[in-house]
Amino acid sequence: MLLKRWLVGNPLKTAQAAHQRLSKRLALAVFSSDALSSVAYATEEILLVLVPASLAFAHFSIPISLMIILLLGILTLSYSQIIFEYPDGGGAYIVSKSNLGEWPGLTAAASLMIDYVLTVAVSVAAGIAAITSAVPALFPYRTVLGVMAIILVLLVNLRGVRESGKVFAVPTYLFIGGLLLMLAAGTYQLLFGQLMPAPAQNMATQTAVESISVFLLLRAFSSGCTALTGVEVISNGVPAFRPPEPKNAAITMITMALVLGTLFLGISTMAYQLGILPKDDETVISQVARAIFGEGPLYYLIQISTMSILVLAANSAFAGFPRLASLLARDGYMPHQMELMGDRLVFSNGILILGVFSCLLIILFNGDTHALIPLYAVGVFLSFTLSQIGMVRRWLNKRGPHWRKKIAINGIGAIATAIATTIIASTKFIHGAWIVIVLIPILILMFQGIHAHYQAVSEQILLDRRGSRPPMPQRNIVIIPISGVNRAIIRAVDYARSRPGEVRAVFVDVDPEATARLEMQWAQWGCGVTLIVLPSPYRSILNSVLDYVEAILEKEPDTWVTVVLPEILPARWWQNILHNQRALLLKASLLFKDRVILTDVPFHLTR
Amino acid sequence: MLLKRWLVGNPLKTAQAAHQRLSKRLALAVFSSDALSSVAYATEEILLVLVPASLAFAHFSIPISLMIILLLGILTLSYSQIIFEYPDGGGAYIVSKSNLGEWPGLTAAASLMIDYVLTVAVSVAAGIAAITSAVPALFPYRTVLGVMAIILVLLVNLRGVRESGKVFAVPTYLFIGGLLLMLAAGTYQLLFGQLMPAPAQNMATQTAVESISVFLLLRAFSSGCTALTGVEVISNGVPAFRPPEPKNAAITMITMALVLGTLFLGISTMAYQLGILPKDDETVISQVARAIFGEGPLYYLIQISTMSILVLAANSAFAGFPRLASLLARDGYMPHQMELMGDRLVFSNGILILGVFSCLLIILFNGDTHALIPLYAVGVFLSFTLSQIGMVRRWLNKRGPHWRKKIAINGIGAIATAIATTIIASTKFIHGAWIVIVLIPILILMFQGIHAHYQAVSEQILLDRRGSRPPMPQRNIVIIPISGVNRAIIRAVDYARSRPGEVRAVFVDVDPEATARLEMQWAQWGCGVTLIVLPSPYRSILNSVLDYVEAILEKEPDTWVTVVLPEILPARWWQNILHNQRALLLKASLLFKDRVILTDVPFHLTR
Repeated sequence: MLLKRWLVGNPLKTAQAAHQRLSKRLALAVFSSDALSSVAYATEEILLVLVPASLAFAHFSIPISLMIILLLGILTLSYSQIIFEYPDGGGAYIVSKSNLGEWPGLTAAASLMIDYVLTVAVSVAAGIAAITSAVPALFPYRTVLGVMAIILVLLVNLRGVRESGKVFAVPTYLFIGGLLLMLAAGTYQLLFGQLMPAPAQNMATQTAVESISVFLLLRAFSSGCTALTGVEVISNGVPAFRPPEPKNAAITMITMALVLGTLFLGISTMAYQLGILPKDDETVISQVARAIFGEGPLYYLIQISTMSILVLAANSAFAGFPRLASLLARDGYMPHQMELMGDRLVFSNGILILGVFSCLLIILFNGDTHALIPLYAVGVFLSFTLSQIGMVRRWLNKRGPHWRKKIAINGIGAIATAIATTIIASTKFIHGAWIVIVLIPILILMFQGIHAHYQAVSEQILLDRRGSRPPMPQRNIVIIPISGVNRAIIRAVDYARSRPGEVRAVFVDVDPEATARLEMQWAQWGCGVTLIVLPSPYRSILNSVLDYVEAILEKEPDTWVTVVLPEILPARWWQNILHNQRALLLKASLLFKDRVILTDVPFHLTR
Repeated sequence: MLLKRWLVGNPLKTAQAAHQRLSKRLALAVFSSDALSSVAYATEEILLVLVPASLAFAHFSIPISLMIILLLGILTLSYSQIIFEYPDGGGAYIVSKSNLGEWPGLTAAASLMIDYVLTVAVSVAAGIAAITSAVPALFPYRTVLGVMAIILVLLVNLRGVRESGKVFAVPTYLFIGGLLLMLAAGTYQLLFGQLMPAPAQNMATQTAVESISVFLLLRAFSSGCTALTGVEVISNGVPAFRPPEPKNAAITMITMALVLGTLFLGISTMAYQLGILPKDDETVISQVARAIFGEGPLYYLIQISTMSILVLAANSAFAGFPRLASLLARDGYMPHQMELMGDRLVFSNGILILGVFSCLLIILFNGDTHALIPLYAVGVFLSFTLSQIGMVRRWLNKRGPHWRKKIAINGIGAIATAIATTIIASTKFIHGAWIVIVLIPILILMFQGIHAHYQAVSEQILLDRRGSRPPMPQRNIVIIPISGVNRAIIRAVDYARSRPGEVRAVFVDVDPEATARLEMQWAQWGCGVTLIVLPSPYRSILNSVLDYVEAILEKEPDTWVTVVLPEILPARWWQNILHNQRALLLKASLLFKDRVILTDVPFHLTR
């Protein structure tokens, strides 16, 4: 408990949950870390598909980046419409469920849940890669470092991120500023001759004869699409903006898209100009920064701010996942525990689950970004598609002003994202996307199963409308399992005698001598309570008592059996291991029997 | 449960615990595996001390082996006297405690417990070494193989070894026969020239100028003393012999000592004659066997029977440790759980603890026999010494026929083992014996602490001699924490209303709207039971209820608080994770409060 307080902080009052409203500048920092941070790995992932096939293919990274930026533009327009239509926050789950129904809603929810886990794993892996690029000695420890980073983010989130805005602003703007400076310096050096753009182009001409397959291009496009993960985040956070919320959110989203597009295209071009190729132990960004800045402080600034914004991206999933889980729990698709706010006003259970699963991914994939990427983006693009289709459906039903234009925008969004989803799912299928494609229906079935269970429970516990009370057994037999005669046991017997019902003390015979001794003591202390001696051929006290209780329940269908357990409770917690855990086992076994009521009568030791 | 049944078997009746009486031939197999198996590593451990200092020292292994055989003779004579004096089994704990008192008894018990754990670890490590000597490809997996072997022996013991005699006889006699054949064949080949005795003697002459230090000789002697571990086992098992038990046991013990002495001296001599030196990845025995038999079936027979007898030695510790733990538990020095026989008539708890600690040793020491050896033998020889001193004390008190002769025999035993203990503890101190020397007092303090606790408990629960019953609080307040109004809750309320005491339903206010709705429902369903609405600024239902209960307990010192918990129990166990664990947490917190009685009223779901 003390450990928990120290790690997590003191409980917060419900009244402390007041909303902090964000300016556009702070909101950009808070909501765009997920999207912007993906430029840290997107260019590299494109190159990693192209270059192993042929060095000559490196230049295809430029047109592919342009395609992705086109997709970004379409998405930004589409999402602006969602922002105005769902000012309370329009996640894919809500938009899909309210416009398309339960199954599409659950599909979006399942995709999102998987992608939150992947956002944490991919971002942390890429953040650690930024560090190990600068300090290669740490490379062998990337899995451990990744797990430690997740645990840190987890603890911060269990405390509740209250000072969010300012904490986010510094690394986000450092990252944007640092990368822009790097691109500007690089361009200057390329133009005025301090840097040689040679090697990459040389390579290109050298083997230019080879022709590229469409599949390879599409696969490179799929990998690059990870740059777009997180662009929807602003549309979930509309209520956090200052009024007029939708307008401010839309402006912020467009700004974010411009920054993202600039950085992504800039890095892709610069990497190509400098002839930089992916390496196992150094990221492309790190190579670009090293080429432009050398090993100076600016280089380290780039690496550190890259790591920071990636950690913030992971952090944003720790806000999104528990919120989605609580929405699902509210609708009965996830365990009710997900809906409870912990004492720090955060959804602690969701945070813990996300932490566990993302750590698992980091461990399974050895903290390797490239291995995780094929799993990523499938879910994101599936939820994009469902949201856009949902919006088209909404406009069709609702009409309203400019509905045709709105349908056109979301329709183009739907078609573009559907195509992208298909490309990603098919080109990355064998590399890992199949895992996600298998998991989504499993999650949907789980949601449905939970829903059905809660439905069945609420029907079974519903009270009779005409006001008749549930029937109660008429008789009550009280059973006290005893192991001897002592103060704790006599206390329980006296408690039982003071209430209605027939009382029977039950003793299990394992040693005839002990039984004879007990019978004599009972004559003195039993106060007339019947003593029943049970045989125990297998020496199992637990089973003998259970059998006896079951026999009563079977013989007398209209009877409660109240089992009164005398419990000796030691003065110090560790002394519990010195006491027989029989009572605990008996309780665990009896709890699941109908018509059995368990009563603990404690006897507290003082030393 | 099913898994347990499959692994461990069906429960056995107490009546099935009949004693199997063993013939001398079977008894030799059952009780001597621990002692005989140590020849598998003892020679090698002597050489491992001598050879790294100088190859010329290898020939000292012969006089050292002779010294150890002298010690074996002394021990055998001394233990024969224990056998006749303690026909019910005279372990070091019993002999020391009954003759020297509590502290020496506990010292012997602590030494024995540590050595049982080491017997398992050393035997299994050496057994795996026998296998990896024959199949070098398995060498990197020795830790895993060791842990698997321990788990196997553990499971066999949890089932209970019923067919013991015959199962033990085959590998033990194969081992004895195989080694004797190997020594005979080796001697024949050495005499008639098929084997060259050259290399070792060459080395000896080559560097014979160096002189050996006394410390090194003593250290080699210490290592060789591991050959004597387990010679006391027969004296624990006297009741298992056919009558006249002591005589048969003594004859068996002397036979065992003769076999052990022959094998040990034979292997030491043969290894020296063949110039065999210890290697990292092949045992000395394996080298000897390979030199004599080549790579044929007889070589593999030696390796397999060596492994088998070592596993049997580990197995014997699985009989000894739990029996010792149950003796200690009976005397109140270990938790009472150790005294309970499981449903397969074995002391399951002791078996599990031994398994866990020996696995831990194998893992910590990477399954390396040589690393474990310095920890071994200290405890064994300490318990030998305490037993012998105990016997001397016994003869002094009891006198009786031939008491002077008997004192002389046990006295010589006591002096010899005391000297050996001192040598082992001092020469092996820095190599690991210090761990044991630190652990023994810690264990003794643990035994004492447990004893003191049980003493305090039995005083506190002792009934008044004059027959007055423990006082009972006069009033009873019944509290039902409710989360709403449903069949489960109304059932609990009706149960509470049917018994004496003032009933109060308690509802924690987290949402004013829900509270207002509940109050309305309560007017219809509450049947006049007081409804108390508790505030909850921190949203913690648990803490609000706990605070309320504590407030009552404090205000009214002469009152029971009975907390009635309505519990919804799902039809299938896995559905439990979908239900709030609040009831469980509340129970766990309330159990440790004095004057609080917990009552569960279950409501079972049917689907």
